[in-house]
Formats: sequence, C-alpha cells, structure tokens
Amino acid sequence: MAKVAFIGLGVMGYPMAGHLRKKGHEVTVYNRTASRAEKWVAEHGGHCAPTPREAAFGAELVALCVGNDDDVRSVVFGQEGALEGMSPGAILVDHTTASAELARELFQAAQKIGVGFLDAPVSGGQSGAELGQLTIMVGGEEEPFERARPLLDVYAKSVRLLGPAGSGQLAKMVNQICIAGLVQGLSEAILFAEKVGLDVEAVVDVISKGAAQSWQMENRSATMHARKFDYGFAVDWMRKDLGICLKEAERVGAPLPVTRLVDQFYAEVQEMGGGRWDTSSLIARLAAEN
Amino acid sequence: MAKVAFIGLGVMGYPMAGHLRKKGHEVTVYNRTASRAEKWVAEHGGHCAPTPREAAFGAELVALCVGNDDDVRSVVFGQEGALEGMSPGAILVDHTTASAELARELFQAAQKIGVGFLDAPVSGGQSGAELGQLTIMVGGEEEPFERARPLLDVYAKSVRLLGPAGSGQLAKMVNQICIAGLVQGLSEAILFAEKVGLDVEAVVDVISKGAAQSWQMENRSATMHARKFDYGFAVDWMRKDLGICLKEAERVGAPLPVTRLVDQFYAEVQEMGGGRWDTSSLIARLAAEN
Repeated sequence: MAKVAFIGLGVMGYPMAGHLRKKGHEVTVYNRTASRAEKWVAEHGGHCAPTPREAAFGAELVALCVGNDDDVRSVVFGQEGALEGMSPGAILVDHTTASAELARELFQAAQKIGVGFLDAPVSGGQSGAELGQLTIMVGGEEEPFERARPLLDVYAKSVRLLGPAGSGQLAKMVNQICIAGLVQGLSEAILFAEKVGLDVEAVVDVISKGAAQSWQMENRSATMHARKFDYGFAVDWMRKDLGICLKEAERVGAPLPVTRLVDQFYAEVQEMGGGRWDTSSLIARLAAEN
Repeated sequence: MAKVAFIGLGVMGYPMAGHLRKKGHEVTVYNRTASRAEKWVAEHGGHCAPTPREAAFGAELVALCVGNDDDVRSVVFGQEGALEGMSPGAILVDHTTASAELARELFQAAQKIGVGFLDAPVSGGQSGAELGQLTIMVGGEEEPFERARPLLDVYAKSVRLLGPAGSGQLAKMVNQICIAGLVQGLSEAILFAEKVGLDVEAVVDVISKGAAQSWQMENRSATMHARKFDYGFAVDWMRKDLGICLKEAERVGAPLPVTRLVDQFYAEVQEMGGGRWDTSSLIARLAAEN
C-alpha cells in the first residue's frame, strides 16, 4: 500500500481520492474549504492536513485536482505548498485541466528537487470519477509514469503517456476543440429537426448508425431536445478550457475559427445565466437566436 | 420476384440496382449515359430501356438515384418521364438527396395517378451501396412503405419511415448538418495537435474513448492527418446538400451559423481545386488559412 496525498476535493477529486482509500492506500487530503476535507475523512477514513505541504509530507505520490492555473500555483508553490513537503523520488501528478506552459513550469520545478512530475488531465466527468472510469491523458517522463500508473489505474479505465511534460494538457485541448464544433453542429441539427417537425428521437436513432454518429449524439440529443442541461461538464469550465486552447493555438499559429466562435456562443450562454448548465446548452442559445 | 425499374446508375445506383438483380428480381434500368446502362446489363443481366417511361412501364417499384432536384424532375415528369409509364398501385421511390419541397411535389403528382411515393435518401456512401449496407431515411405513407420495404432491405442495413412525404429528405439534412460542424471541429483539433507536436494517432486513440468520440474521428482522423481525401462523399455533393439545408432552414427560421460558415469553407475547398475531395478535406483549407 502506498502513502498518497490528494489535494482538491471537488466533484472530481472527492471520488478520485475515495477510490484510492477504498483500495487500502494511506491517503491524506487537503482542501481549501477544510469542512469538505473533514467530511471526506469522516466518510473514508485517512487523514486531512491543514496545508498542501503537510498533506504532501512523506507521500510517494501527490495528486492535485483543483480549478485552474492560479489554483495549481497556489497549492504547489510557496512555503505552505505541496512541493515544499515532497522528498526526492516522490511524484507530483496534476489532474487539473491547465495550460501546457504551467505543466512545463511544474516539471522543471519538480525536477530541481528530484521529484517526478506528470500532467494528467482527465475526461469522463463526475460520473467517470465516481465510477473510477476516467480517461487520463498524461505528459511527462516514462519512469515516474510507470511508477504512478498503478495508482492512476485505481480511478481510470484508460491511462496513456502521450509525450513530454505538457502533452497531457495539449491532448485535453484537442479533446475540447473536438467537442466544441461537434456540440454546436449537433445543436443546429436538433433545432433544425424540431423546426421542420421531425421526430427527433427517431431521426437520431437512424443517423447515429452512420457518418454523423458521435458520443454526444448518442448521449445528449434527448436531453438537448428536452432542454435539460444538468448532465455534466459546466459551461463555466468549458470556457476556461477553451480559453487555454485559444491561447495555446495563438502561440503555435493554429487557426481555430469555429472553436473561437463557439467560445463566444458559450459566453452568451453565460450571459443567459447558464454558466452552470452543461456544454450541450449551446442549443438554448441557438433557439434564442431568432 | 418483383418487376423493378432503377433509374440512375451512378456510383450509388449502379451497385444498388445490382443487389436487386442478384436477389433474382426482374430489373430494367435507365441511365442518361446509355453506355453505362448497357455495361450494367452486360454485368448483371436484366434489361435497359431508352427512356425513364419505358423503364417504368409495368414495374411494381420504380427507384431513382440521380443528382439533384432538376435531374429528378427531368426523369420523373414529362412525356418520357417515369410517372408516365407507371400504373395505379405501383410505387415510386426517390433515393436522390433532394429538397423536401420536391418530395412533397412528387408525392402529390404520384397520388393523382394512384401511385405511391417515398422519398428515401440514403447514407453509407459508395461502400455502403456496394456492400448492400445503406441506411435509408424514408418519408411517405405507411402502406407503400410496407410494400416497398422488402425491396429496400436488399441494399440496406437500416430502413425507417420517419413521417410524411419529405421526412426522409429532412432527416438526411439533419445528418449533413451534424457532419458539417463535426468535421470542421475535428479538422481544427487535428491541425492543432499537429502544430503542438502531439502524436495524432495516440491522442485520437485516447480521446475516442470519451465525449469527443465520433464516427468521423474513428474513420477519418488518420487520413486527414495524412491529407488523403479520397475516402468517400465529395465536397461538390456536400455543397449541394448544404445548399438544400440552408434553404430549408431559412424557410422554417432555423439558425445554422456554423453550418453556413462550413458551407463557405467548402466553397473555398472547391476554389482550391478540391471539389472531388471527400468532406474531410476541410483540414486542407484550414492548414492553408495561415
């Protein structure tokens, strides 16, 4: 059994840390809002620590899952930060969806003190975290990856090393870019089907057998048609992720015309009060367009 | 065994008519370029007729698969048209991707002379036609649908009646709208992955297990990454289909902002000389954008 620290007990981190505990690992948690860490300990056992540094102290692996680049910086760096508590040979794993630039910075800071670093953003949403069925896209070096892998497998169905530090974050961006154009296209298709009077369910059933098929079509068309947007990843978070994509794309000169447009559509969903709706709520904005 | 006419022996119609013949039906074909009809008869047996009217004469079912609304009009209406050769109780099935307005017009013209009509555009491409594995989206009435179905099943894996005349065409439009946004999003994602130096195949392998998954991702990312665009449905045809979508959308007041933009991107692909490339060639336009 391993000694593990888990920092950030949000909708993702809470169940991820729980899976480690259920496998019998010695888990110490840290959360900015301490009451949530105490609740986690009451439910799962293990320990909670008053600072990231103390959570990380003596841990073989320190996993993070927080909000954004700034949150990562605040729990990793500084006197009470996780790095301060880590010893040579330990591994820092960042599950936050953040910039590739931050991943490279963390890699270098960790390397200086003999700590391994992996950027390891996840997909699969809250239900994937709860079921221990996440997909983890990893950037970093082979040696710490192989050592961390058995622990990541505890809450993942698929874990893959994709290249040097930052590669996990870049792969997650590829994922989000795909979803942006796809969900907007699906929104236009479903609203069109409604306006021309088709039976949306029947049409989706037929076309999901062919070249228009997508996970989003199979899992979200019925809820989009019903205008129910409480099935996962929130618009506020999508905008954060697309902001990272657009910044990176500018850095490397990759054109993202539709992704950029969809980001603006999501901004309009936020203005409609839909920041907490899921990403399929693009159809609500579209329906309001006319 | 049924007496069937098949009008239009293009890349789709040629093998579709062939499947009917292989099942032992008595098939008479008509094609604008007569030499192709003669080639079909030399290969499959059956008969060829000098006009649509003569092909349709005495047939229980007359199937069409031609280019566009005008082509359908020219083979159905007029003195040498198919309707002229049809008797009460026969069924006219249009496999052309055409407007819903034309479908309603054909339905009424057929009804006047006691002929059943089904609009029945297909998806599955040339390989689907060759393997007899098409998906057929049907509009029309139940009674002729049930009678025609055993014949349509000969070249389809899925045949579904979706509503009154025009519904098959409208469903096909929903399909094309989904594909437009999806393929553009996928193009942006793959080009981004290339520019940031990721291993495209590895990233696609990982993200195709999650919410970004699509048929296009699984079947076209490798060829898009290799800039090979000879795997199916051509840009020229996609523009025809998107034109039909945009016109219908205007009629019913359905906003299609991204579909409209992607239609313009396809126009740029045509200007690049890519009218015969497949729909995944959006990535070539995107790569040329910078």
